[in-house]
Amino acid sequence: MTLAKAYAATSATAPLGPYQFERRAVGQHDVQIEIAYCGICHSDLHQVRNEWGNSTYPMVPGHEIVGRVTAVGAHVKGFKVGDLAGVGCLVDSCRTCPSCQRQLEQFCEKGAAFSYNSTEMDRKTITQGGYSSSIVTDEAFTLKISPKLDLAAAAPLLCAGITTYSPLRHWKTKAGDKVGVVGLGGLGHMAVKLAAAMGAEVTMLSTSTSKEADARKLGAHHFGLTSDDATFKKLAGHFDLIIDTISAPHDYNKYLGLLRVEGSMVLLGVPPEPTPVAAFPLIMGRRSLSGSLIGGIAETQEMLDFCAEHNIVSDVEVIPVQQVNQAYERMLRNDVRYRFVLDMKTL
Amino acid sequence: MTLAKAYAATSATAPLGPYQFERRAVGQHDVQIEIAYCGICHSDLHQVRNEWGNSTYPMVPGHEIVGRVTAVGAHVKGFKVGDLAGVGCLVDSCRTCPSCQRQLEQFCEKGAAFSYNSTEMDRKTITQGGYSSSIVTDEAFTLKISPKLDLAAAAPLLCAGITTYSPLRHWKTKAGDKVGVVGLGGLGHMAVKLAAAMGAEVTMLSTSTSKEADARKLGAHHFGLTSDDATFKKLAGHFDLIIDTISAPHDYNKYLGLLRVEGSMVLLGVPPEPTPVAAFPLIMGRRSLSGSLIGGIAETQEMLDFCAEHNIVSDVEVIPVQQVNQAYERMLRNDVRYRFVLDMKTL
Repeated sequence: MTLAKAYAATSATAPLGPYQFERRAVGQHDVQIEIAYCGICHSDLHQVRNEWGNSTYPMVPGHEIVGRVTAVGAHVKGFKVGDLAGVGCLVDSCRTCPSCQRQLEQFCEKGAAFSYNSTEMDRKTITQGGYSSSIVTDEAFTLKISPKLDLAAAAPLLCAGITTYSPLRHWKTKAGDKVGVVGLGGLGHMAVKLAAAMGAEVTMLSTSTSKEADARKLGAHHFGLTSDDATFKKLAGHFDLIIDTISAPHDYNKYLGLLRVEGSMVLLGVPPEPTPVAAFPLIMGRRSLSGSLIGGIAETQEMLDFCAEHNIVSDVEVIPVQQVNQAYERMLRNDVRYRFVLDMKTL
Repeated sequence: MTLAKAYAATSATAPLGPYQFERRAVGQHDVQIEIAYCGICHSDLHQVRNEWGNSTYPMVPGHEIVGRVTAVGAHVKGFKVGDLAGVGCLVDSCRTCPSCQRQLEQFCEKGAAFSYNSTEMDRKTITQGGYSSSIVTDEAFTLKISPKLDLAAAAPLLCAGITTYSPLRHWKTKAGDKVGVVGLGGLGHMAVKLAAAMGAEVTMLSTSTSKEADARKLGAHHFGLTSDDATFKKLAGHFDLIIDTISAPHDYNKYLGLLRVEGSMVLLGVPPEPTPVAAFPLIMGRRSLSGSLIGGIAETQEMLDFCAEHNIVSDVEVIPVQQVNQAYERMLRNDVRYRFVLDMKTL
């Protein structure tokens, strides 16, 4: 066992503060990673504050983890000491159910082991995340990170990257496809970069003209102002795929009308209340409203390799771990372009 | 031109009554059909009573049309006098837009020409439907009906049949797939028969135990009582595909929870108000909520051939045309198993 330094939440209302805990000894299939950087995902904030009602404390958040391998188990084949490595939202799954066999570990029928606020597959051992100095994970759930990428800026690929890459791939985005991205935040800015790298013609759909310049810099070819009803007339029937990254309440039906025949709109965010959906825009054009959740391990590696090939990382603001509580407040004001990343050397 | 006898609505509030009008002369690509039977679709009632707000009068409803060819134009290749023939919801489309080129004429970007309460593609000539003695249609929108099938019972295949066949095919229903059918009416009873004929394991999902015996007779392997919450626990994650035929308000989210990972629920009915949809059941399992509208002409022919091969027709109650107004009242009470068909000899 190794003592890990960390930042943890001890209750839903206390600020995060310094914490120490033990990481497991390196097993035969395990990789031990010294964490260099950990991205801050909005779901960290939700879980720290128990906004999903399932939080246990003390909680060390963080599932956008990158660092360097410091030890490997006897049976580890894919990693050696000194390699760069990453850990995302998943640290284990049953590995035998139909979803796991289809490499969709995020939908493991037994319930996957998530990086924190979860348990290992024994359903007893609490998992703790990446706001910490080290982590030990099974090789099968450890990702390779190319040294070509800026390491701090690569951290958010482990969640924001795969969350947007997976639906683009699943709905077969290809050169020339018209892709709309709703909302320009941590997820939205990755969706724009990835879709553009796949050759799609990308339109940023946002309520605020202040996002236009940034969206174009990130790779968007067009901008649609969603506070203007004319946008919905102009772009009716336009998109092959719409990636909706918004968690605030909004009218899905208006966006469904922007899909071509057989187009799909994919939800990545969970608004606080169900959203009224009219059958008519789905029926007229055999359109679909779907959802997507991160991605499996193989697809996460594919995404990381794609990003290395296309030199894609997140736009990040690197901060010392001591500023995590202020960062949460700034995230609530959308005051970050587009992802905070904790520098774990500062622990 | 030929004089056609018919039953027509002259306003949204008057009962249907006898009417006469002229059918066009048989053009070079046209087929003239003496109508033997016409099914009554619920959408006839909606349009007769102007419940969609787009009705014009006098209106001769009816788009489940079967009969015998009495004349063909000089360039007609696929039909000869004496053949059985059918006409469904579509009588023309632009034939050049992307949807038409993909044989999805129902989604023609110019707007297809529908059998009644619509216009020909000239956007001037009013179309009139199958509650009439004859019809003249372009060969390209005329279907072949096998003499193997009971002709009266085949009429509803032209709308109820293709409306349920198309989503089963589009979502690639195959032997062993688990298909749920929500609602046992004109559409639902066809969905059960067709899905069972494709080899699927079919579950009828209905609010009423009184439907169970009938559903099993039609080919359903299982029955799920949707007024009992235990059904939704027992069948969670069970279905590859759910065909939802209900137009009354109901909770989509409960049914979405019955889908397996990557399963789809397809709406065929349009409830009067939008239905609240939670993002969570879509995201957890990459599930889809979609809609489907009738089917293209090639697929309608494929469906008719499939029905001939599997000896599938609708369960019908054949009535004289003079009873159409009473039939509408009985349909509103769900007092028909499962489709009224007008015997046009009685005109």
